[in-house]
Amino acid sequence: MQSLSAPTSPPSTVLGQHLIAEYYGCAPGVLDDLEALKEMMLAAAQKAGATPVKAEFHRFMPQGVSGVVIIAESHLTIHTWPEYAYAAIDFFTCGHSTYPMRAHEFLSQALGSSHSHLLTLARGIFDGEKGASGTEASGSARDYGPGKT
Amino acid sequence: MQSLSAPTSPPSTVLGQHLIAEYYGCAPGVLDDLEALKEMMLAAAQKAGATPVKAEFHRFMPQGVSGVVIIAESHLTIHTWPEYAYAAIDFFTCGHSTYPMRAHEFLSQALGSSHSHLLTLARGIFDGEKGASGTEASGSARDYGPGKT
Repeated sequence: MQSLSAPTSPPSTVLGQHLIAEYYGCAPGVLDDLEALKEMMLAAAQKAGATPVKAEFHRFMPQGVSGVVIIAESHLTIHTWPEYAYAAIDFFTCGHSTYPMRAHEFLSQALGSSHSHLLTLARGIFDGEKGASGTEASGSARDYGPGKT
Repeated sequence: MQSLSAPTSPPSTVLGQHLIAEYYGCAPGVLDDLEALKEMMLAAAQKAGATPVKAEFHRFMPQGVSGVVIIAESHLTIHTWPEYAYAAIDFFTCGHSTYPMRAHEFLSQALGSSHSHLLTLARGIFDGEKGASGTEASGSARDYGPGKT
């Protein structure tokens, strides 16, 4: 990951990874289908190697869905705007047994997104000995176009 | 908000605000107290003008708590590492009726945090006419020290 503040040495401990994903140009219909989105998000968690604990989804009137999948490793959320063909997803994981990019690859295809944007944040940065905390989030940003997921 | 890519003109539509907050040097005890954290997060949502819909919290063994508050305006999550005196929070809101910084101010004090770091992301950026999407997340980062919350 590239640091926003360009530190001269890498942090010794990073407690969590936070993948912030934007999906634009999504397929019609899917963004307003609560059951399809719930199934999709649970599948994404599993494909990333995460363990779903609970899922809570809510459909708004006249349109749009918000959902949270609590996983043993942290959380995965989605908020959709069907009128903009747009979905906002974030995927927070701790430990080294999950692969958030697998969730992204699956979701990009399942949502039929024409292009997406990813930002990866390192959460809880501790430099040097335990207890000495860093205060900068680091992250990298990437765009994905058609066929580049 | 400052754009990471420094566009020459501001986006015309931003669908959501995402506040990513790191709290370091938190008070002992509170980060492992599920009920206290649940109450604190519900209070934070209300102080920001958000409407809590559901709260799901889980305590890990031997320590640490994860929690999600689903709000009508999106979500508020927390993950704690008592052994690092650290809490990771994110607060996603849509619309213009919520004030995430009020949640931050409350949480910083309630957690007894010695210093914090905030990153504010604009989610779902649409430039120009509806349907024409931007692909860059924009954000601003700030550090807060003792007494500067």
